[in-house]
Amino acid sequence: MLKTVYLDHNATTPVHAEIKARVGDWTEAWGNPSSIHFAGRGPKAILRESRQAIADLLGVAPLELIFTGGGSEANNLALKGICERGPLTAQDRNQVFISAVEHPSVVKAADYLRSRGFVVEIIPVNRSGELDLAFLDARVSERTALVSVMLANNETGHIMPIARVAEIAHRVGALVHCDAVQGLGKIPVKLRELGVDLATLSGHKFYALKGCGVLYARKGLNLTSLIHGGGQERGRRAGTENILGIASLGHMARKGDQIVAEGERLRGLRDGMEAQILREITDVTVTGADGLRVPGTSSLVIEGVDGETLLMNLDVRGFAVSTGAACSSGNPEPSPTLLAMGLSRAEAQSSLRLSLGWGTTAEDLEAFVEALKAVVARLRSFKHGESYAYGV
Amino acid sequence: MLKTVYLDHNATTPVHAEIKARVGDWTEAWGNPSSIHFAGRGPKAILRESRQAIADLLGVAPLELIFTGGGSEANNLALKGICERGPLTAQDRNQVFISAVEHPSVVKAADYLRSRGFVVEIIPVNRSGELDLAFLDARVSERTALVSVMLANNETGHIMPIARVAEIAHRVGALVHCDAVQGLGKIPVKLRELGVDLATLSGHKFYALKGCGVLYARKGLNLTSLIHGGGQERGRRAGTENILGIASLGHMARKGDQIVAEGERLRGLRDGMEAQILREITDVTVTGADGLRVPGTSSLVIEGVDGETLLMNLDVRGFAVSTGAACSSGNPEPSPTLLAMGLSRAEAQSSLRLSLGWGTTAEDLEAFVEALKAVVARLRSFKHGESYAYGV
Repeated sequence: MLKTVYLDHNATTPVHAEIKARVGDWTEAWGNPSSIHFAGRGPKAILRESRQAIADLLGVAPLELIFTGGGSEANNLALKGICERGPLTAQDRNQVFISAVEHPSVVKAADYLRSRGFVVEIIPVNRSGELDLAFLDARVSERTALVSVMLANNETGHIMPIARVAEIAHRVGALVHCDAVQGLGKIPVKLRELGVDLATLSGHKFYALKGCGVLYARKGLNLTSLIHGGGQERGRRAGTENILGIASLGHMARKGDQIVAEGERLRGLRDGMEAQILREITDVTVTGADGLRVPGTSSLVIEGVDGETLLMNLDVRGFAVSTGAACSSGNPEPSPTLLAMGLSRAEAQSSLRLSLGWGTTAEDLEAFVEALKAVVARLRSFKHGESYAYGV
Repeated sequence: MLKTVYLDHNATTPVHAEIKARVGDWTEAWGNPSSIHFAGRGPKAILRESRQAIADLLGVAPLELIFTGGGSEANNLALKGICERGPLTAQDRNQVFISAVEHPSVVKAADYLRSRGFVVEIIPVNRSGELDLAFLDARVSERTALVSVMLANNETGHIMPIARVAEIAHRVGALVHCDAVQGLGKIPVKLRELGVDLATLSGHKFYALKGCGVLYARKGLNLTSLIHGGGQERGRRAGTENILGIASLGHMARKGDQIVAEGERLRGLRDGMEAQILREITDVTVTGADGLRVPGTSSLVIEGVDGETLLMNLDVRGFAVSTGAACSSGNPEPSPTLLAMGLSRAEAQSSLRLSLGWGTTAEDLEAFVEALKAVVARLRSFKHGESYAYGV
């Protein structure tokens, strides 16, 4: 079997070996945590202990956390839960701000709110990925209900100035939501220091199982449920809890020290890889390199090469990477994030995202750079019309 | 360790031993199914094969199934997804019917719709649990958007005449949703024969993992997402899929023959247990015994005994049962389902739900009836004021 190198950790992370080893045992706590008899006790303990571990990692109180079915649900719960507390009236705050580079689950939830009468404003970013704080500062008002800005961008790794966003929003009495999915596991995430009212986390970007996310909602915050029904999560999210997913996220949450250590290691690996690529392949730029970035994420523009073709050529050689383009049935659309940063369509279509993780080694990256050099040289040797060809 | 007997399968089922054995291996398909590189292929195959197996079990097409984070989410998606396709206008169908004994996730979703301008009508049931079809027939109109009736009741096991409901609703052009969570795994569920437009299923009531449900939405049906974002589930439910949960439900879906065989076995066990209890304990009635019921579910009223006290006394002896009362911090409220059936408050508070499952044996039930006899005799020997006392 081909040795493979996975460099797409921002799409999802491998399940941690300790979770793989324990998940079978966790199924023994199969009871319903709402049951008051013996079968409810094991899962109830997992819920309580995982909630405490995650709260400790984030520096918040356990009851400020709402377990959801994933990051997308948590983002939807944040935006709709705040804005749809009742039918929209003329007296209500009817304005929502999101950044130009948010995840689709924030963008589409905002689109939905727009269809229900809200005014959605998009905060621009510059070529480095930096948020236009002056734009936000000038436009927020007592009509602003919510400002939603991500902690770290999934494509470039750019870290947003969330504490400043919170200051500006709170000055006019608006609430602040932060999609911190791409921060968790890469940098320390301390929600009180960020000063946000709501924040989204996801297990499967942090070596835990899929199907489990968290919405942090500051104590005392009133929000409408997305899923109505039973009294789980103090009435804020109905439905029997995904105990395995929660157990796995709780397990990872105890690895705060490793987040710091791996962050340092991956920053070194990423910077070394980028330096080598820039040295050995011509006409490559690193998007957002001059801004503050999470370790391990690298967004390249490789001139004259189609990103998706590159991806497929690397795939057959055993390297998993991502393009800025969200491919669907051979019709690649350039990444809205990269376009919002001011890249041209051509640049966005020649982009490649590399995201390293805890299992990534220096040897992996050496092999990757060699493969990238070979594939880029080969693709650049073709005439433009043939650039979709790929193979070994 | 105390030998335990679990008779609360309607709350949740044990994870099937085959799933426990395989779940560690399934974590190796940890990639994101939306990824187009090699890591996406394993999880994509699990998604495809599980969807096909579940569709085969239900007698529908794979693309008519939407994976959700559970039954509650699927019920919310059905009701809100149909009714909130756009802002409610005076021209819209603004009326929703639900039965008087629906699950809280249907009741509360309907309450939410009421707060958004919908008229919610409650279809009564009689003391046997039978739905008042004449009520529905007389009241549906061209103003009716949706009729939502469960397939089998979680407390009594009563089976509703869904095909008749669908006929009546369709006659006026209304859509029909069926919460089939308590049917799946207990009786064959063939959705085309039921004639419904939407149906809800849940994995964790069918020996699969928690955090995975399914909404069936008939081909061509237009509904608004609850969770907006990425294009998963053909744009109807955003968020990275719970691969383990889906794999486990797909695994169980291949056991259609066992559903039939276990149904026959459990019907015999349940009927025998009820006969013995009625013979050996005085002043007991079986709620809904004269109606059509799923195998394995039994709802008893045991006069002069508080249901929650009974539950706790059985719990310390190693028997897990449920009351009709949804207990919360020592303040038991009588079951809305039993009250809706016409039971008195006292009867509802003296109720006990037994739900058998694939692991239940005749020996389990013999031991249970002996324990029940002893506990009931003991509790009845107390004066009323002491009836909350419990112990070994």
